[in-house]
Amino acid sequence: MLSPEEVIRQLRERGSLWEVAPGVSGLKGPVVSLLREIEAALADLARAETSNEWVTPAGVSFETLERAQYFASFPQWLTAASHLSGDEAALQHIAASASPGAAARSSLEPADVVLPPAVCYNTYAAHADSVIAAPVVMTAQGTCWRYEGGRLAQLERGWAFTMREIVCLGAQSDVKEFLDRSVERVSTLERVLGINCEMVAASDPFFAPNARGRAALQRIKGLKHELVFRFPDGRPLAIASFNDHELFFGDAFKISLPDGSPAWSGCVAFGLERWLMAVLVTHGVEPSGWPVTLSLNAELAQARGSDK
Amino acid sequence: MLSPEEVIRQLRERGSLWEVAPGVSGLKGPVVSLLREIEAALADLARAETSNEWVTPAGVSFETLERAQYFASFPQWLTAASHLSGDEAALQHIAASASPGAAARSSLEPADVVLPPAVCYNTYAAHADSVIAAPVVMTAQGTCWRYEGGRLAQLERGWAFTMREIVCLGAQSDVKEFLDRSVERVSTLERVLGINCEMVAASDPFFAPNARGRAALQRIKGLKHELVFRFPDGRPLAIASFNDHELFFGDAFKISLPDGSPAWSGCVAFGLERWLMAVLVTHGVEPSGWPVTLSLNAELAQARGSDK
Repeated sequence: MLSPEEVIRQLRERGSLWEVAPGVSGLKGPVVSLLREIEAALADLARAETSNEWVTPAGVSFETLERAQYFASFPQWLTAASHLSGDEAALQHIAASASPGAAARSSLEPADVVLPPAVCYNTYAAHADSVIAAPVVMTAQGTCWRYEGGRLAQLERGWAFTMREIVCLGAQSDVKEFLDRSVERVSTLERVLGINCEMVAASDPFFAPNARGRAALQRIKGLKHELVFRFPDGRPLAIASFNDHELFFGDAFKISLPDGSPAWSGCVAFGLERWLMAVLVTHGVEPSGWPVTLSLNAELAQARGSDK
Repeated sequence: MLSPEEVIRQLRERGSLWEVAPGVSGLKGPVVSLLREIEAALADLARAETSNEWVTPAGVSFETLERAQYFASFPQWLTAASHLSGDEAALQHIAASASPGAAARSSLEPADVVLPPAVCYNTYAAHADSVIAAPVVMTAQGTCWRYEGGRLAQLERGWAFTMREIVCLGAQSDVKEFLDRSVERVSTLERVLGINCEMVAASDPFFAPNARGRAALQRIKGLKHELVFRFPDGRPLAIASFNDHELFFGDAFKISLPDGSPAWSGCVAFGLERWLMAVLVTHGVEPSGWPVTLSLNAELAQARGSDK
């Protein structure tokens, strides 16, 4: 096992990892193939649950996040996209400026759209004010943005990072069974990748005082679990989370079951760069030491078969 | 052939396409599989040229764009990412506000990073101030952002859209041969997808007056070509571009050849949603009418074989 600092040092030394802004990184070299393997394995895992794959929008509206009470929950992470005014004189001023980057930074319009803090908000928004006739399970992978200032760390806590999510909307039992199946499949993937993790009860880092009770409730009711990988020094890295939202999003977005009651929801989320870090810490940065995940589909099929 | 308006109407009607902000769209339903096919075909096309695949950063630094003279060239498109201040009082104010979205919009810090207007800027930045011992060809796919105000149109001109790029850095002959090979491979893909396009001389929509001469020069010297698909009414849609930058980026980023002279560069760029639109206009929105691209690798191998 390597320390995460050693992984980052070795990747940087090889030119495989670099940063262009705090928390905004690129990858090149063999590690890209490993990330693609992990990406494909997580896509297989999601496909074992559902063929309903979405390309979720690259932004989320402010209205959607308001409806999700995001600003009371996690405003500290918020990142939004702003464009320059189309005003010709302003653009000419920027173009002619001695420091056009600085001139552009101070000429941006108010932000029009939020960069997704998670993939699933757009799922609830897309089903808002509707009745779902049958349980809905969807999956998508997307770039998410969470600004965590001094806590940003490459391949652990990016400002921009990649998330695969699987979301279930339905009755309470649909969501519970979905989460149980997901836990089982993820343990298969953990074994195939040869990384050791543990499942732990967790809570979200809610911000606002009036939301803090929610964190305690999450733990008491067992609504959030995380798959935690441990670095050699014992420090934890949550590489997947399993979330039972109860009626929160069904209520907030008025997503109803055929009997008129609000839908239950749950989601499973994977941080791809964190999975990459867990594999690199465990197996090193030399490709010869990396696990082969091509057997995941066979393993998942077998795991499903053994249920019967 | 359908009109693009009809394609959009039918996709919306089926719930396969929706917009969360101007130019920021999502896709679901069978059309996602078609986009994945196009994505895989373009990845195959890129891999026929190079195995050097990068995961380019989700942002570009203002310094990189300054160095690329971006602010004199295309400032009108610029989109940047800003986060909220970590100040607890400001966050509490937002959380407690009656309109927290509006409060957040007016509390963003100055932007720290630009959302990529193209994938390739980070390639030049990663090779800045270095000598390349041999030609470098890389490829990456990423989300790009260009704000085009009233010209935004779904699957044609997104604020956010998906770009696959292949970039070549080397001597003039390396770049010329790279562009020639790319033109040939793209015509294979065009045939496999059953879409009719033409290759036309083009120029970039440079902004600043002092950059406008560059557009004329591009045309005169044949530095930019576009693969243009035509809608039934004759309106053109550029679905790929082939760009010879001559010494522009080699000079700007001080990327040198072993003899000390600046590197030549060229890139080939594909707009994935535009390819999707061209296929849908040609073959309709019913999956039964869609082309199968699985044979692309075989076709590309054959095309290469016939060169010899």
